Amino acid sequence: MNKELKLKTLLVQKPLKLDCGKIIQNFPIAYETYGSLNEKKNNAILAFHALTGDQFVTGTNPITKKDGWWSYAVGPNKAIDTNKYFVICSNVIGGCMGSYGPSHQDPDTKKIFGANFPVITINDMVNAQYNLLEHFGIEKLFSVVGGSMGGMQVLQFVSNFPNKAITAVPIACTSSHSAQNIALNELGRQAITADTNWSEGNYNIENKNPNKGLAVARMAAHITYLSKKGLQEKFGRKLQERDDLKFGFDADFQIESYLRYQGSVFVDRFDANSYLYITRAMDYFDLAKRFNNNLSDAFKKTKTKFFIISFTSDWLYPTQENKDIVIALNAIGVDVGFVEIESDKGHDSFLLDVPDFLNTLKNFLNKSYLNN
Amino acid sequence: MNKELKLKTLLVQKPLKLDCGKIIQNFPIAYETYGSLNEKKNNAILAFHALTGDQFVTGTNPITKKDGWWSYAVGPNKAIDTNKYFVICSNVIGGCMGSYGPSHQDPDTKKIFGANFPVITINDMVNAQYNLLEHFGIEKLFSVVGGSMGGMQVLQFVSNFPNKAITAVPIACTSSHSAQNIALNELGRQAITADTNWSEGNYNIENKNPNKGLAVARMAAHITYLSKKGLQEKFGRKLQERDDLKFGFDADFQIESYLRYQGSVFVDRFDANSYLYITRAMDYFDLAKRFNNNLSDAFKKTKTKFFIISFTSDWLYPTQENKDIVIALNAIGVDVGFVEIESDKGHDSFLLDVPDFLNTLKNFLNKSYLNN
Repeated sequence: MNKELKLKTLLVQKPLKLDCGKIIQNFPIAYETYGSLNEKKNNAILAFHALTGDQFVTGTNPITKKDGWWSYAVGPNKAIDTNKYFVICSNVIGGCMGSYGPSHQDPDTKKIFGANFPVITINDMVNAQYNLLEHFGIEKLFSVVGGSMGGMQVLQFVSNFPNKAITAVPIACTSSHSAQNIALNELGRQAITADTNWSEGNYNIENKNPNKGLAVARMAAHITYLSKKGLQEKFGRKLQERDDLKFGFDADFQIESYLRYQGSVFVDRFDANSYLYITRAMDYFDLAKRFNNNLSDAFKKTKTKFFIISFTSDWLYPTQENKDIVIALNAIGVDVGFVEIESDKGHDSFLLDVPDFLNTLKNFLNKSYLNN
Repeated sequence: MNKELKLKTLLVQKPLKLDCGKIIQNFPIAYETYGSLNEKKNNAILAFHALTGDQFVTGTNPITKKDGWWSYAVGPNKAIDTNKYFVICSNVIGGCMGSYGPSHQDPDTKKIFGANFPVITINDMVNAQYNLLEHFGIEKLFSVVGGSMGGMQVLQFVSNFPNKAITAVPIACTSSHSAQNIALNELGRQAITADTNWSEGNYNIENKNPNKGLAVARMAAHITYLSKKGLQEKFGRKLQERDDLKFGFDADFQIESYLRYQGSVFVDRFDANSYLYITRAMDYFDLAKRFNNNLSDAFKKTKTKFFIISFTSDWLYPTQENKDIVIALNAIGVDVGFVEIESDKGHDSFLLDVPDFLNTLKNFLNKSYLNN
């Protein structure tokens, strides 16, 4: 990571009690904004990022020099139109792009936290980010939006702050991590901790890097972001710059080469301990749990207008899990729209150029904004 | 592995030309048999094992002290009735249970092969096992059966030896590894080779063990053998011997504990290099390739009667890929039956107690045997 880069940061001074019981204070939240906050301060959208996202939603990410993770959706005249809306996005706590996380110094020991950083939850992430509203003097957000873990944060935000958002758009997400979701995240964690360079989380202190393990974790996750059909159409059994099989263990197939590349570029921008902490937060997510397993009760105080979006080929957070949220909202008369978008691009559809999705998102936001 | 154990072995003296071009000879094939070969020698069934299987089909596996991998299906009065049939199963070449593989000595260098063992294919495996027919003086097998990679061997066997089996039962398999299949196997290989103890494949010489990497590979594969629904029903979000989340990285959830256990017991019985070689063979499998991508042509000389079985919740080798084989056989008038069995147990269904499957297999074999 480019340590020279000056990240925009809010230092949260008041204490935050985490779900684990620990209290953190004077901690940083790194954020970016796009567009302008209007005079009435009623055009703000808080966007939440997914597992490996960050605050650089659109434009060029100054670290990777590539497009921001939601460049297809956010920008002037795009679905989330920055000519109209003021978009705020912050790095989650536990992350590695400037917000308080395992690569920061423990104020007590003056050492890098590593695996001594407190285990955080989606609830903690959302409560930390709430400070941005006070920072900007925003009484009510126009919308909270996000896909995957970003969608979980949308759900948690509305549950925690039922009167703080006019609209909410959870995309390709779930209200509770399934056994398969947990299994896949555990696989990634095992890959990281199996790397001897991980050193019980102290690799930063020892100046090592568990890059091989982190790359394996990324490859595993990447496979789950794509659909079987999408992989077959894009790669099939195509060979990588060769006429025939080489009878060895180099990347004969394009899909092998692609996965290795995904692993190798990921380790340049992401921190292994953050991967452990954020996947743990996702696995702990079970919104109905503190409401006696009645998901409707998580939303009973809200007037927020929901719009939920799923994708046909998403097998990580399939349509049924998104529909379960719709059902829970309908059960208590919350205003909720729902659409399942046809796409072969799997879970990653929400990050990609899927016109039906982008148009739907745009129309929902713009229509709600007009009627606001 | 118990090095004391005396494995039943056929030493194949005549040379075998592998697909990679190399020639092997004087190599061992470790096998087991169950039941008795009748006088006419027309009651023999050759069973092929899957990726991590071995020759110990049923009864107690002498290495693991657990039931053989197909104990539900094979035994007296079971689907593959050893009171009636003579069941032969051998460890595939490339494997680690006595057949010629990477943990054997290279006759040229007198060192353990490791990653210098030749890359083998499903075709090579089948051609090596064909020697067992001559060994037992069997002119024609009553059946060739197998699931997953075992099913691929069934298809390859009939293609190579169109007049050597009366019946063939490929179960939960494919005629060509998909991009997602290759990606998942590549993930396993990357996990193994990321373990510094792998030592470029020379861990046996250096007296190390890439157990952490191999365990991660196994965990990844294990997730793919089960269905999302099956995992949810069996594990859901159940906690592992605790009342609530512990806010740490120990196994809070039963699914985490289960996966870790699966990884840990696997490394005691399996060899990391064999895992690399056998997954490579699976990825290379594309039966139609040498027939100008016309799968029907792979079977055009056969009179073998096929019965193909798939499972509703198998997402690794889904029903459609099994049906594609049925279609190819129907196109040239080969006798083929097909059934999709309803099961929540995913790809692993063929190894488990799934009565509809076991009854179907039993009835097909027994009826075909009567009419023989």
